Formats: sequence, structure tokens, C-alpha cells
Amino acid sequence: MSIEQDRQFLRQCVALAVDSVAKGGGPFAALVVRDDKVLAQSGNCVTNSNDPTAHAEVQALRQAAALTGDPHLTDCTLYASCEPCPMCLAAAMWAHIPRIIYAATHDEAIRAGFDDTVIAIALYGQPLPANLPAERFQHLPIPESSAPFDAWLAKEDRVPY
Amino acid sequence: MSIEQDRQFLRQCVALAVDSVAKGGGPFAALVVRDDKVLAQSGNCVTNSNDPTAHAEVQALRQAAALTGDPHLTDCTLYASCEPCPMCLAAAMWAHIPRIIYAATHDEAIRAGFDDTVIAIALYGQPLPANLPAERFQHLPIPESSAPFDAWLAKEDRVPY
Repeated sequence: MSIEQDRQFLRQCVALAVDSVAKGGGPFAALVVRDDKVLAQSGNCVTNSNDPTAHAEVQALRQAAALTGDPHLTDCTLYASCEPCPMCLAAAMWAHIPRIIYAATHDEAIRAGFDDTVIAIALYGQPLPANLPAERFQHLPIPESSAPFDAWLAKEDRVPY
Repeated sequence: MSIEQDRQFLRQCVALAVDSVAKGGGPFAALVVRDDKVLAQSGNCVTNSNDPTAHAEVQALRQAAALTGDPHLTDCTLYASCEPCPMCLAAAMWAHIPRIIYAATHDEAIRAGFDDTVIAIALYGQPLPANLPAERFQHLPIPESSAPFDAWLAKEDRVPY
């Protein structure tokens, strides 16, 4: 996978996160990719499905595993429009995902009112999974990464959570 | 809630985990309790539903939130047959669960081949959520807590994951 392919999947992911906001979901999205093809994708559906675990990454992992008939996605990459929270990171590790690439950082999510670093700090006393090696967990900035949060903040009937 | 009520819910949880093994699931179970009544319950369904996120706690939280029509379970207690993993702990925090009580420790899970401390160490460099206060996260030992793991280890056709 070239870095340009990674950027292209992240752009697709960010566009899906913008679309998620328009559909009443949260400003996040994720893709599970195998062999250069999107196996599963989802926006964040916490409030519109009343499911506290329906983060985009968890939803995409669940769909991909259902499609492949295997809870382990050892040959897949997880793309996320924003840095995954501790629940999503642990879910990706249970799914044996070898590569996670994300666009926006937690700072962008905090700007939009989503502060999941609070959870990592409450659990483990630190905000970030500093122990994951760069080949497994990578921040790849793209110019579009703020768009889902701008769409969220501009949406007057948004449901915070 | 008295400590004897807590123990009773944990016994119910452990019995459900033994039952989960008999039904082809993993040796874990969880209950979501509100006003002294079980609102939702589940065993671990990772291998029998091909869902890497279908830990007992996540399943019970999802069911409880679907039932109440609210992703936040601010007045509920989460009982777990075994110490929850980082995914389940973070899920409980996203669900605003104020109290988590568990029976077996990670050491019991490790004995049965489930080493989720690896994930917390990989992410945050430490095995346990040392920062959670005791009133939010409590180990309450009961004599029955090893039973699900004994059932798991005795099951010849178990599917490890």
C-alpha cells in the first residue's frame, strides 16, 4: 500500500464522516480495507442507534468480521477519520488488525466537543497509546481532516453525547 | 445496593458464563442492573457470532441501551464474571456506567488462555486501570468465580481466540 493510496482511503473516510453528520450521526467514520478494496465502512451511530459502542471503527470492524466469517482481520487495514478512542483501539487489537491509519488528531475532536482522552486518562493515567509502534498506528494528516468537525459544529440540531 | 446483593448478581453472572461455555460461547458473562433488576445480560459471543467486539460486557451494554433508548446508562451497575478488558472498560465509560463490579481477576482468564492484559500493556504500558477509583471499579471475590474457566478448559471442542 503506497502512502498515496493511504491518503486516498483517508479522504474517502473523511467524506463518509461528513456524510455521517448530514445523516444525524457523529462526525467520525472508518473503513476496513483488504487487498486495496473497502471491505466495510461506517459512520458513528451512537445517538442515532442508541448504542454507546457504535463508534465508526467498532461498527466497521463488526461488519468486516461478519462478512469474512472470522472475528480476526489479520490482513486488513483500519482507516479512521480521527484518532481512535481506547475502546476502538482495543477492539482493533482484539480483531488482530495489523495497521491503523488516522487523519485528524484528538485535538480536532476536542474542538468539536468530543474528549475521549478523558477516558484513557481515567483508565490508564495518560491520554495516548504511546506504546504502539508507528508501523501499527500511524497519524497521516490530510488537508480535509477538519471537515467533519466543521460540519458538526455548523449543524444546529446536533445531539451531543 | 448491599454487598450481599452485589454478590448475588455476581453469582448470577458466573452461572451465565458457565452456560455461555455450554452454548459454544466464551467463558465470560455480564449483567446490566438498574433498580435491583437485571436490565440486560449476555455471555461472550465472539466466536459464535464472528464479532471481535462481542464481549459479554459490550453485548450487555448494547442491549441495555437499546432497551432504554438511551446510549447513557447513568443509573446502572455493570456486573462482570471477570475483570473487564480495556475495550469493555472504555465502552462502560462511554455508556456513563457509574459502577463496575467483577468476580474473577485477569489471572483466572490468563489460566484459561485469555490474556487481555497484553492489550492494555501494548496500548498504555500497564496491565490494569489503576486510575479508576474503588467506588467505580471494584473486585468482589466469590467462591464460584473460577467455574466458567474450569468449564472452558474441560470443553474439548472449545474454539480459542
